[in-house]
Amino acid sequence: MRAIIGTWKMSFAGVSEAFDMLKNGVPAGEAAVHAVKTVEDNPAFRSVGFGGLPGRDGRVTLDAAFMDGRTLRMGGVMSVENIQNPILAAYRLCGRPTNCLLAGRGAEEFAVREGLPLRDMRTPDSMKQWAETVSKRSDMPLDAYRGHDTVCVLALDDSGNMAAGTSTSGLFMKEPGRVGDTPLIGSGFYCDARFGAAAATGVGEDIMRGCLSYEIVSRMRKGETPREACQNALDELVKRKLELGEEAGNISLIALSPDGMFGAATTLSVFPFAAGNEKNAALYMIENLQNSVIEPVNEEKLAGTD
Amino acid sequence: MRAIIGTWKMSFAGVSEAFDMLKNGVPAGEAAVHAVKTVEDNPAFRSVGFGGLPGRDGRVTLDAAFMDGRTLRMGGVMSVENIQNPILAAYRLCGRPTNCLLAGRGAEEFAVREGLPLRDMRTPDSMKQWAETVSKRSDMPLDAYRGHDTVCVLALDDSGNMAAGTSTSGLFMKEPGRVGDTPLIGSGFYCDARFGAAAATGVGEDIMRGCLSYEIVSRMRKGETPREACQNALDELVKRKLELGEEAGNISLIALSPDGMFGAATTLSVFPFAAGNEKNAALYMIENLQNSVIEPVNEEKLAGTD
Repeated sequence: MRAIIGTWKMSFAGVSEAFDMLKNGVPAGEAAVHAVKTVEDNPAFRSVGFGGLPGRDGRVTLDAAFMDGRTLRMGGVMSVENIQNPILAAYRLCGRPTNCLLAGRGAEEFAVREGLPLRDMRTPDSMKQWAETVSKRSDMPLDAYRGHDTVCVLALDDSGNMAAGTSTSGLFMKEPGRVGDTPLIGSGFYCDARFGAAAATGVGEDIMRGCLSYEIVSRMRKGETPREACQNALDELVKRKLELGEEAGNISLIALSPDGMFGAATTLSVFPFAAGNEKNAALYMIENLQNSVIEPVNEEKLAGTD
Repeated sequence: MRAIIGTWKMSFAGVSEAFDMLKNGVPAGEAAVHAVKTVEDNPAFRSVGFGGLPGRDGRVTLDAAFMDGRTLRMGGVMSVENIQNPILAAYRLCGRPTNCLLAGRGAEEFAVREGLPLRDMRTPDSMKQWAETVSKRSDMPLDAYRGHDTVCVLALDDSGNMAAGTSTSGLFMKEPGRVGDTPLIGSGFYCDARFGAAAATGVGEDIMRGCLSYEIVSRMRKGETPREACQNALDELVKRKLELGEEAGNISLIALSPDGMFGAATTLSVFPFAAGNEKNAALYMIENLQNSVIEPVNEEKLAGTD
């Protein structure tokens, strides 16, 4: 059995290629990394990798993580500036018994030692968007812009192993040094090949409050489907937020089971994602409705969504 | 009802003072922060705050976090060098809807903006220990020294709120930028005033694999006592490690329930901690035995332990 799921329309090309890799016997980890790297390399996607949106200080700082579902080992980098593919650094850090999660300059030094390519991750387009936002708003310090997409990919291979990969440039106009859920095990991602894998995108600070990825995998362990586990974990956190007088917020979740079923849930009106567990990968969407059905959709239906 | 628990003998003085604060109506958060700060300020404790042990490059980098059990909000700093009390920075970051977890220079800039004192956290004693280790071992890069103590404090106040605070200088001789479980929600700490609080000390990279603090709180939610929840969460991860051909490792856990019961579990022969839920705080210990009883002990019985 093989299957794959990735967040947002932006993951579709990479997820499709990675699904073909799985069909050719490539392990889940390599396939997930390939799909994430494809998004990192595309400057059109302003929330991940090259061309990602800067923080308040005009610097682009990136987070990424990788987890192997058989060993429960992870690797991750946080708040790094010049690593061309943060997901490759995370992948190489996975498996170390210690020193597997590195922040800032230490992570960049690791990438250099490993011979990973460095790159100035800023593009004229991303810096233009930053400069326009700064010039429009005189009330510094700016609030963080809340629109935010992380690429997350979960993969299952024919050997039964599973893997999770995540990558982001974080909230646009974030404070220097800010790290969200993306590189944090249990919050941004979790993967146990016996029970399933899950990952999250949206406002990381809220996702962290519920350790949503670990919670989803725990629910799959108890017998919930990926769809049920995502929805129930999300409903519980949203209920708690409403009790605290907060809004539901911006959270979308994906999950994959060891038998190749996938699921999702969202607080947005529509959350598109890419997935495959039969012949080919396709685009799907889910709506913020209890009974929202997960079905393949065409690009036109997703016009105007991320 | 009021109660408090802190890891290791080193927390005893601060936990005792914090327990008196709780008796005087001080909120759980302030009491937990006071106990952690007391350990940070004492250069005799080589694994936390001032006088903490350096990484491989001779730099002392610190991690700390704080979580409020009523709002599920956290604040944290990671990989910071010159903040005199990392726990105070974490405490001030808690409550922000975004930008609550900051790494490196961004966290230091935040501390400066907040007027928190800076300090060179190196001491002649800690640098001497580092220099001796470097000179003894010619086979750089050095392996991380595995002995490692994080201070973790969990508190419950009369209003029913709970809080968790953690602080560490991380593994001695760690790689530059290395971050462990201490500032990671769900792994190093978790606190939900409805169900309980938990925290972890030991090799962070292993604690992270099982999201042990979130797992313990989930188990208390299902009705397990703090002692049972710690032991069962630990047993499950250790079993998985043994299946993978690894050793049990170095992990110790503490937990506190909303009704003031506390518990612990450890893979070490003896794990000392400080706690109070009646008249005064006292020193306790637990052994690596299924039926290990948690009882007050005197300092002599703990001679030779941390």
